[in-house]
Amino acid sequence: MADKRIYNFSAGPSMLPEQVLTTASEQMLNYKGSGMSVMEMSHRSSAYDQIIKDTQQRLRDLLQIPDNYKVLFLQGGASTQFAAIPMNLLRKGNADYILTGHFAKKAYEEATKYGSIHVAASSESDQFAYIPKQEQLDLNPDADYVYLCNNNTIYGTEWNYVPETNGVPIVADMSSDILSRPIDVSKYGLIFAGAQKNMGIAGVTVVIVREGLLGSTLPGTPTMLNYKTMADKDSMYNTPPTYAIYILGLVLEWIEQQGGVAAMKERNEKKAKLLYDYLDNSTFYQAAAAKEDRSLMNVTFRTPSKELDALFVSESIKAGMSNLKGHRAVGGIRASIYNAMPIEGVEHLVAFMRAFEETNGGK
Amino acid sequence: MADKRIYNFSAGPSMLPEQVLTTASEQMLNYKGSGMSVMEMSHRSSAYDQIIKDTQQRLRDLLQIPDNYKVLFLQGGASTQFAAIPMNLLRKGNADYILTGHFAKKAYEEATKYGSIHVAASSESDQFAYIPKQEQLDLNPDADYVYLCNNNTIYGTEWNYVPETNGVPIVADMSSDILSRPIDVSKYGLIFAGAQKNMGIAGVTVVIVREGLLGSTLPGTPTMLNYKTMADKDSMYNTPPTYAIYILGLVLEWIEQQGGVAAMKERNEKKAKLLYDYLDNSTFYQAAAAKEDRSLMNVTFRTPSKELDALFVSESIKAGMSNLKGHRAVGGIRASIYNAMPIEGVEHLVAFMRAFEETNGGK
Repeated sequence: MADKRIYNFSAGPSMLPEQVLTTASEQMLNYKGSGMSVMEMSHRSSAYDQIIKDTQQRLRDLLQIPDNYKVLFLQGGASTQFAAIPMNLLRKGNADYILTGHFAKKAYEEATKYGSIHVAASSESDQFAYIPKQEQLDLNPDADYVYLCNNNTIYGTEWNYVPETNGVPIVADMSSDILSRPIDVSKYGLIFAGAQKNMGIAGVTVVIVREGLLGSTLPGTPTMLNYKTMADKDSMYNTPPTYAIYILGLVLEWIEQQGGVAAMKERNEKKAKLLYDYLDNSTFYQAAAAKEDRSLMNVTFRTPSKELDALFVSESIKAGMSNLKGHRAVGGIRASIYNAMPIEGVEHLVAFMRAFEETNGGK
Repeated sequence: MADKRIYNFSAGPSMLPEQVLTTASEQMLNYKGSGMSVMEMSHRSSAYDQIIKDTQQRLRDLLQIPDNYKVLFLQGGASTQFAAIPMNLLRKGNADYILTGHFAKKAYEEATKYGSIHVAASSESDQFAYIPKQEQLDLNPDADYVYLCNNNTIYGTEWNYVPETNGVPIVADMSSDILSRPIDVSKYGLIFAGAQKNMGIAGVTVVIVREGLLGSTLPGTPTMLNYKTMADKDSMYNTPPTYAIYILGLVLEWIEQQGGVAAMKERNEKKAKLLYDYLDNSTFYQAAAAKEDRSLMNVTFRTPSKELDALFVSESIKAGMSNLKGHRAVGGIRASIYNAMPIEGVEHLVAFMRAFEETNGGK
């Protein structure tokens, strides 16, 4: 069965390590002699308590999360956080947003419902092809927080620096690059990430938040969107998405076994280099993102025409690869090569790109 | 493996049909030749689109949901709906709540943040042991809606009638009895249910709502809590909890194969009758809920003492049954016998009850 699996370049939900799927399949009817599936466990049972605690501890260890940060397992995806963040963090009522793509803009639009939100920088007029530099950021020293999206899935750009904000907390959407490389959590006030790209399945969102930022919410904030409530109850205020948390735990265990986030970084750089080097040496393909801001996770490029882009995608499916079509907002081609994509998948793609270039009028 | 499974009487998350788990396990690495797990599928792919559409259609068919109702697959559990309901349905600003248990009260408390909320009836002073009768309901004809919790998991009571509200829409939490018996959806304005008790796993909440109630929200309502937005995007405004929806689909398929909700009702009545008949003929055990309001889903009872309750629970685990301990708020014993609990499980429990009664000083 496993040998018929394809290389899945989906931007999310996306490929999982085969080992995770094998374990999930084997444990499906009877988890470690408990007589039941993890799906069937009461979230208040000791067996499940161990699963959620181990998962949190694994994440803390992998990202070296300081003790003064809470780790929450929430529902509703990053889109729910777009509202929860201003509802929990606005105090004076101002925040700075840096617009580097579709999701940063969505977060900004949602935040404008709740306060005075300022665009500190935007690369929209250049089709979000780059990340603004420090000197381009128009930051308000009185802002409650500065918001950024760390990796822009659609455009293939990624922040390669943490902005200097003079003490204003940084809120970062890391949905598409969390655990792909080491980060210094202490430089952020809040980090959040939907699990379905780099660490699990759709249905659980991780929030890592400095304790000092908790405790005040705007009037009318739903209890389920109150970080303090969820922190005080260890994400068990109500029934958490138990199975999605279990799968997250299996992925974290796999990352540990691979050598942690430092090993992930090395592997991801190697995979991305294969693709970017090939693109840079080709006159047929054109990389889409600014060179210095290229994402390690989502590699975006184009052939010489829309027709060839479409042919590339349809031929790639026959060659055992899926989801290489670029996002509908920008077209072209996008290869999402998250942690779970093996180097063999990228090698397979590069070989296909070479053959396609030769057949369709390359150099 | 399967033969070591135990009878799991958990109130939720709870037992699933073994067939569902077997299918999920078999399809884990490669869903129907797609080369990937359902977990790994883009929610925008045609394979996943088929899964979510089939799931919705199955639910529509099973509950005979009229065409003027929308079916939404949301995240955040029933607790998120406790806020979303007033945020979406309050127009004049008034609602009636009927308090029949812990979760009805939680819903009421959350709603008071958003409007003028009136308690139309409450059985709290009698430990929520009964459901108020029609003539006990103090209903406001100008209310935006009347809220009730259809089955009260902790107390073991269930509504056996749909109240007459003179055209005011009824909002019903059916988290613990949806699909256990036929219902007339047209008598309700909105029905919602977390999936993890009677139809799936934690992480997806079904909302069935009459179209005419959509289109207006209170200021500050998060986009993700706006029913109209989710309805317009067929629950795909953002990435839905894809795997939880897939499991829901497998459970619905299983219910269809059993003969639908009418067959479920027959089976559930038979299971509940075994327990209630035994309780009514015993002087050792005492049923907790008012006879006419007994739940088909959660059977609550006590032995003569707290010590014997505790002994009952610990002995039952040795006898291959789990989660029979009553909720911490009320103590005693609770057997949750949702759709997936086979009659053999209930027979096993009754035999155990008989033996326990004989050993510990019955008649």
